[in-house]
Amino acid sequence: MTFSPVRRLVAEGLGSALLLAVVIGSGLMGERLAGGNVAIALLGNTLATGAALVVLIWVFGPISGAHFNPAVTLVAALRRDMPWRLALTYPVAQVMGAMLGAWSAHAMFGEPILQVSSKLRDGGGQAFAEVVATFGLVAAILGTVRFRPESTALAVGLYITAAYWFTASTSFANPAVTLARSLSDTFAGIAPSSAPAFILAQFVGALLAAGVFGWLLKPDTTT
Amino acid sequence: MTFSPVRRLVAEGLGSALLLAVVIGSGLMGERLAGGNVAIALLGNTLATGAALVVLIWVFGPISGAHFNPAVTLVAALRRDMPWRLALTYPVAQVMGAMLGAWSAHAMFGEPILQVSSKLRDGGGQAFAEVVATFGLVAAILGTVRFRPESTALAVGLYITAAYWFTASTSFANPAVTLARSLSDTFAGIAPSSAPAFILAQFVGALLAAGVFGWLLKPDTTT
Amino acid sequence: MTFSPVRRLVAEGLGSALLLAVVIGSGLMGERLAGGNVAIALLGNTLATGAALVVLIWVFGPISGAHFNPAVTLVAALRRDMPWRLALTYPVAQVMGAMLGAWSAHAMFGEPILQVSSKLRDGGGQAFAEVVATFGLVAAILGTVRFRPESTALAVGLYITAAYWFTASTSFANPAVTLARSLSDTFAGIAPSSAPAFILAQFVGALLAAGVFGWLLKPDTTT
Amino acid sequence: MTFSPVRRLVAEGLGSALLLAVVIGSGLMGERLAGGNVAIALLGNTLATGAALVVLIWVFGPISGAHFNPAVTLVAALRRDMPWRLALTYPVAQVMGAMLGAWSAHAMFGEPILQVSSKLRDGGGQAFAEVVATFGLVAAILGTVRFRPESTALAVGLYITAAYWFTASTSFANPAVTLARSLSDTFAGIAPSSAPAFILAQFVGALLAAGVFGWLLKPDTTT
Repeated sequence: MTFSPVRRLVAEGLGSALLLAVVIGSGLMGERLAGGNVAIALLGNTLATGAALVVLIWVFGPISGAHFNPAVTLVAALRRDMPWRLALTYPVAQVMGAMLGAWSAHAMFGEPILQVSSKLRDGGGQAFAEVVATFGLVAAILGTVRFRPESTALAVGLYITAAYWFTASTSFANPAVTLARSLSDTFAGIAPSSAPAFILAQFVGALLAAGVFGWLLKPDTTT
Repeated sequence: MTFSPVRRLVAEGLGSALLLAVVIGSGLMGERLAGGNVAIALLGNTLATGAALVVLIWVFGPISGAHFNPAVTLVAALRRDMPWRLALTYPVAQVMGAMLGAWSAHAMFGEPILQVSSKLRDGGGQAFAEVVATFGLVAAILGTVRFRPESTALAVGLYITAAYWFTASTSFANPAVTLARSLSDTFAGIAPSSAPAFILAQFVGALLAAGVFGWLLKPDTTT
Repeated sequence: MTFSPVRRLVAEGLGSALLLAVVIGSGLMGERLAGGNVAIALLGNTLATGAALVVLIWVFGPISGAHFNPAVTLVAALRRDMPWRLALTYPVAQVMGAMLGAWSAHAMFGEPILQVSSKLRDGGGQAFAEVVATFGLVAAILGTVRFRPESTALAVGLYITAAYWFTASTSFANPAVTLARSLSDTFAGIAPSSAPAFILAQFVGALLAAGVFGWLLKPDTTT
Repeated sequence: MTFSPVRRLVAEGLGSALLLAVVIGSGLMGERLAGGNVAIALLGNTLATGAALVVLIWVFGPISGAHFNPAVTLVAALRRDMPWRLALTYPVAQVMGAMLGAWSAHAMFGEPILQVSSKLRDGGGQAFAEVVATFGLVAAILGTVRFRPESTALAVGLYITAAYWFTASTSFANPAVTLARSLSDTFAGIAPSSAPAFILAQFVGALLAAGVFGWLLKPDTTT
């Protein structure tokens, strides 16, 4: 079944908006209710994000592929899973949608709509964490689309559930998400000055995974 | 396989009763055990509600469709997935079942059966949150019944798991549930004076999703 | 594929032992680590029990049906899903296995092996909660084995996850489990004097569900 | 589809590395954020490990079988599911990968890369817990690969979720993981002096499960 480019772009934008509403909204909920215990806030944030990702990929996957993520779109284009012409328009929808989603979260929680994060996330450990986080995300996608495509949505949701906890950066793993989270001075925020290193690390991790899994998943005819 | 209207109405009523027993019962459990940390209470409330929804939809779905929700029934009727004659009787079973479920939770926990909530949930942010919450719920349903109908139950359970955390209202997203929760002066309650705005917002969100997904899911023959 | 009665009884016994090791062991872990916050202990107890049930039913289901529960075995015999001759031997294996599992948990955690619980769980609310808990459990089983038999294990695990939180008794829902938990003076224990009312309530709930779902799931030929 | 030995070894190594990054990283995250409440730290550690295991087995299973565990590889070789020649090389990749993963976690969190754990985990209860933990893990694998091979990954993830809570040792259940965790003086660490008893217990539990399930799963032709 084929959907027109406009439907695909709306799907990417709407899905990205809902994703950011979840990421930032559940962070706000955790921050407000957890009485200062950041681990409890992160549990709620994790549960919400992991669960929502599965649903969003199920809903929007058949329409647009449900990338919501410029690094994933880049890998898809490099692997010729989608035409470059379309791949270049996806990030516009993803970033615009992500911003709208962040602002929706602010509106729901009675926060000022326009904010800029002051949360510094700097240092080599954080950047390395984003390389690992995005490497793992692309590994979860490429590793399942080949042998169990019906499980890719669950794999992404479960992977991010883990990655919120095992990566020192709590796994942004997505340049559009990173940009939108720089516009939220809340639990899930990231200072604009910390964003470029995150985004660079994310593309590095994604390309690394594309390379490794391109080689790893090539079956041998002779053993 | 076809079930008679009486069986379908009993299924809607019994399912709604069990749903409310879960929502209010797990809220009470959390409130009693969490020592004042509302985030921990909400984690238990979320886990219980999300898990129960999946089971209830699996069990009652084949009989009645497992709406448990007048806004979902309205969308089903508008889409001609069920006859209006039957759709008009569903909400009666849903609301009566939901009330019985709330009272059952009170009975289990040794609370007075008849209560009226004093928990105000007012303001534009709350109403907007209910629009978003119900939009997302109907999106999860319409987006999966088309391409992955076997996953709709899981999608609803996972969506509500997320929505308890990312919407500022903790996602009622259901007029029958809202009415029944106004009869419980506990963790999950809502003051009767706050209920009408919630219910209105829920129908708005549901209709909005029906409109958007009606357009979005129409595949193009020419790309 | 058919398994001999001895293999079926070993499967019921071993599965019940592992189930009790999980229920009592995770209760002990929660009690020791949660610093007095009972809700956090219950979260761990819930997560462990729900997850383990799914696995145990997947593993032992094909051999013995994975009841681990005399009330479920009674319903199966009444519905003629298994011969009475075999049904009468199942509870022996279930109770013996459950006790061994409780004692294994004690051994792992360095507790005295033989204990008697001093935790009173009395009152009408508790008994009603056990009726509801077991009604829901049998509903989850009968409602899924008919239309989605491949999901019954998940349904039971998800249901118990919810029931630990929404029933005032934290859902024992199983006479063999109740007996074994009376032999553990820990988080998951129940005083022997409270056990008979629990067990009676469990059989009432199970039979009620068998009756209701026997009627509800009978499809009509004429609508 | 057949993958060359080198691809299989890389898959075992990379999967083991990611597994340890998750185990140790999420332990560190929990330790840092939970404000001393060990149960909350363990909840995050559990969620991350269980979720990641499912994804890692989905991704690497089709290539190498996704053992990541010398005890599992031994059982596979004994059951002639893989040639001994290959089975003897797997543990090298598993241990090397696991160590690299531990060090990656240290790097992400800005910890010294090279550490030795000082966390004693001694005593008969701990050793018995590791026998039970590994018995259950191998039971989850052998019990599902026979009748529901598509669910083995979920079974392992769910089992470890439970086992982190119900076994007194928090379920290492894996000699390669044990060695790597001895090199991390963090939440998930184990003192080198405690490791040999753990590893011995793990092999005992694995072989016991292989024996019990070898007998149990042999269907009878005559009942």
